[in-house]
Formats: sequence, C-alpha cells, structure tokens
Amino acid sequence: MVCNETEPKAFSDLSRLGIHTITTKPWSLQECIFEYERVGVRGITVWRDCLHAAGIPEARRMLEQSGLEVISLCRGGFFPGATKGERQKAIDENRTIIEEAAAIGAPLIVLVCGAQPGIPLADARRQIQEGIATVLPDAAAANVKLAIEPLHPMYADSRSAINTLRQANDMVEALADPHVGVTVDVYHLWWDPELKEEIGRARSWLFSFHVSDWRTPTRDLLNDRTLMGKGCIPLRQIRGWVEQAGFTGFVEVEIFSNEYWSWDQREFLREIYSAYLTYC
Amino acid sequence: MVCNETEPKAFSDLSRLGIHTITTKPWSLQECIFEYERVGVRGITVWRDCLHAAGIPEARRMLEQSGLEVISLCRGGFFPGATKGERQKAIDENRTIIEEAAAIGAPLIVLVCGAQPGIPLADARRQIQEGIATVLPDAAAANVKLAIEPLHPMYADSRSAINTLRQANDMVEALADPHVGVTVDVYHLWWDPELKEEIGRARSWLFSFHVSDWRTPTRDLLNDRTLMGKGCIPLRQIRGWVEQAGFTGFVEVEIFSNEYWSWDQREFLREIYSAYLTYC
Repeated sequence: MVCNETEPKAFSDLSRLGIHTITTKPWSLQECIFEYERVGVRGITVWRDCLHAAGIPEARRMLEQSGLEVISLCRGGFFPGATKGERQKAIDENRTIIEEAAAIGAPLIVLVCGAQPGIPLADARRQIQEGIATVLPDAAAANVKLAIEPLHPMYADSRSAINTLRQANDMVEALADPHVGVTVDVYHLWWDPELKEEIGRARSWLFSFHVSDWRTPTRDLLNDRTLMGKGCIPLRQIRGWVEQAGFTGFVEVEIFSNEYWSWDQREFLREIYSAYLTYC
Repeated sequence: MVCNETEPKAFSDLSRLGIHTITTKPWSLQECIFEYERVGVRGITVWRDCLHAAGIPEARRMLEQSGLEVISLCRGGFFPGATKGERQKAIDENRTIIEEAAAIGAPLIVLVCGAQPGIPLADARRQIQEGIATVLPDAAAANVKLAIEPLHPMYADSRSAINTLRQANDMVEALADPHVGVTVDVYHLWWDPELKEEIGRARSWLFSFHVSDWRTPTRDLLNDRTLMGKGCIPLRQIRGWVEQAGFTGFVEVEIFSNEYWSWDQREFLREIYSAYLTYC
C-alpha cells in the first residue's frame, strides 16, 4: 500500500542516490559496483561482510577504479559488554574497522552502538559513550568520522541502546568532537514526535541519511523493510527536514529484506531506482 | 535468559496480581474466573472478545458472583479514520464500549488509540485527541475512566500513533479531565530514556500498570511476549518508579504469546503466578 503524504512525482536526478551493499546482499562487491554504476548510481556504502569477501586490497582497487563515491563503511559499534575484557575487545574491533575504512577511502563509519539483554540500558549507554570516546582519537588520526545511528526501539534489547535522535544528539554534544555525528535512518526514526526538532538540532553533525520504508504488516523484526513508497514513512517530509538542516550528502538506500533478496537483483535494482525517483 | 537487574527473590503477596483474559486466550471468561480465583489471583481485566463470547448479562453475573475485582475493559480507541464517517463509527464504537464497561462494573477502559498507514502521524494524533474529547462526557456520565496506553513504536503504523508516555501525558494535560489518564505497560515503554521522569509526571493520572517481558530474539511483532523474568525488562525498577508515583493498583499480567497459548493453560497460569512472585 502506498501511503506517503505526497503524490508520487518523478524526477530524473540520480546524483544523490547511494546504495548499501547489504541492500543487494546476494551480490559480491564487484557485482554491486558494476551494477550500481550501470544504472547511474553515484554512491556506495560498503558493508564489512561484502568487504571481507572481496579482500581489502582488491576492494580498494575496485572502488578506486570505479566512478562510485564511497559514502561509508557499515558498521562499527557494539560497545557494551558484560566484562571489561569484552568491552576492550569491542574497542579493538572498532580500531580495526577504522583502519578498514581508511584503507578503502571511506570517510565515515556508521555505528550500531550495541546492547545486550543482560546489561541495563543506562549502563549500556555509558559504555557506548566511553567506547566512542576511546576510539575517537584513532578515527581523527585516520581522518575518518563516526556516525551514531539511533536504532528503532524494537532493537533496544540486543542491537542498540541508542533509540532516539535526541539521545544520539545528546551523546554527540557530550563527546564534543568534530569527528562524531549522527546518521538519520527513516526506518528507525519515522515514528518519533520529536524528529523534526532533533534533525534541526543535528544540523552541524548530520553525517548521513538512510532510506527504506516500513511495511504493514511487518513480518520480521530484522529483514522485512520495504521499498520506498510501499510503506507508511513520510519520506519526502523527512528528507525535507534533513535538507532544511543543510544536509547535501547522499540519500542512501538500505533495505534488509528476505523477500527482495530472493528476487533477481537486477530487477530489484530497477525497482530501487524507480522508487528513489518517485518517492524520495 | 534471565536478565533483570535484580536477583530473583520470592514473595508471597498476591493481593495486587491481576490477569488479562487475553493472557489465557484459550479459556472462556468462565474458565478465566474459575482458574484465576483458584490460584489466588484477585483482579481481572476483561477483553471484549471474551466478554462477547460469554454474553454481557452472563458475564456481569459471573463477575459479580466471583471474588475478583474487575480492573478494566480492554480495549477502546482506534480513533483515526480516513473519512469523517470512519471517525464517527469509531466514536460510536467507543460509546458502546463505555456502556459495556459500565454493564460489567469495569471502572476503566484501556485505549489503544489507533493509527493507519495512510494517515500521517500528526493527523492521527489530532484525531485521537478529538475522539477522546468527544466520548469523555459519556465516560464521565457512566462513571468509567479512560486510560491512554502508549504503544511501542513498532506499532505506530497500524495500532497507535501514541508511542511514548510523554505523548500520552501531554494529551492528558491537554484534555484536562479527571476521567482521562494513562496506562503504563512495561512492554511498550521499557526502552524509553525518559520513562522514570514521565512516570513521575503521570502521578495524578496513572490509572493502570501492565507487565510481561521482552523476549530476545522476538520472533513475532505481536504475539511473542514472554513471562516476567525471561526477558530484559527491568520490571522491579519500573514497578518501583510506578509506586514512587503513588500507584497502589493492580500489577496486571498481559502476555500475548503464540507459544504460551499453545501450552496447557493451567501450567501457564502456575508459571505466571511464580514469575509474578519472583520477578515483579
């Protein structure tokens, strides 16, 4: 069901369209690069599984030779841990991720901050802030930025204790470092009555913007996002707020979907292209 | 996995335990009443499907003859509609629900306020407030209160556009009528960083309190709640905040679970009893 607030209207400007490799998960990094470029996509966000499968030197070579701009590396984070050893392991892993980002020329790492059922949310939030503070000097030295991505509250048990943009903005202000900012993902944040105000507040540190849509009914908590225009998220309204806040970066399509992953990925890519032009 | 913040500790006070008939969905109202009383449960919240199956006069008779206190009738609400006619239909339905509550001696109706994929959240929120304002005189005349229950943001597409306690409190303040207040359900609200503060703010209008737990992983958006103590919700902490706000009503067990509904319900009831004493 199409239920955005505005009538569909086609544009032909693809200059700001970016795609996450996870969106076309069945494809290798090489296939993603080839197929995205073929249809005129300009930006790519690389997921680590895809990066590791290609190998970092080869990935770097392919990305450099392509006409694609690397938007970000997904994903760092997962800082909370039950023990000091676990938390140190997460910090070490994030340092590796910073090296990987620098190696492939990704200027940004998106942070899924982490949560664990056994760790109270208030503790997890402290551990996240401490973890980011610890790796920030490494990020700065590598000329890589870190974006806190607030995740939908349905992931507060096991993926992220940062569930609203207000929380992310508060943390960015507390960390007070130009290398840390936020990612706004409409899937996680569309329901929030404070969203417009908090996007405005993020003006100086809004590093990236992710789109997809919320399917009704949602059949799986993780992998049932839908194409833009097929759900109930007011995409143009939120994109408007993001642009009013001065954001001029890519509009990144990040769709986890068991259904679309089972499609022919070229056909899915055509649908993405068309949905982007019509609804974003 | 048991992951509450406190060690399990047994109590034997059942005086504040209430159960929702939907929790033991396979049972008729008659079976619910008989079985709840048999184990010492003192309060019952009646769901409309169960009420209608029994018939209202017979339900009234059974409830009056039982030793159970009727806590509330679930549920009213669903005010948003695409047309004026749909919204009027919802208002008429809520008037019927108010009559049903009065008929069975339920002093409270819990409102699942409603949302629809085609209706922008801001509009849905206005329609909800208008709907409640319209039926409040009927509720007052029937001596029945209405509780706005904020629902988890994962239900913002189709069940409720009221997704935080702050929103519910704002609406109660705007409506400014002693017959309207809120329900705090830990399942919907546990993740909210403002929860403690907003529970304190609800002091004068905190009408009811629902418990269950959040299962990791959650396999179904609607029907995969778990028993208290088997998830990650800090139940005692939240109950503490609710009691610090002066609440002395029932602790109502409301579990939707395909898994538990497939159990022998007497066995499930024993587990509820035990989980309540140990973790709530």
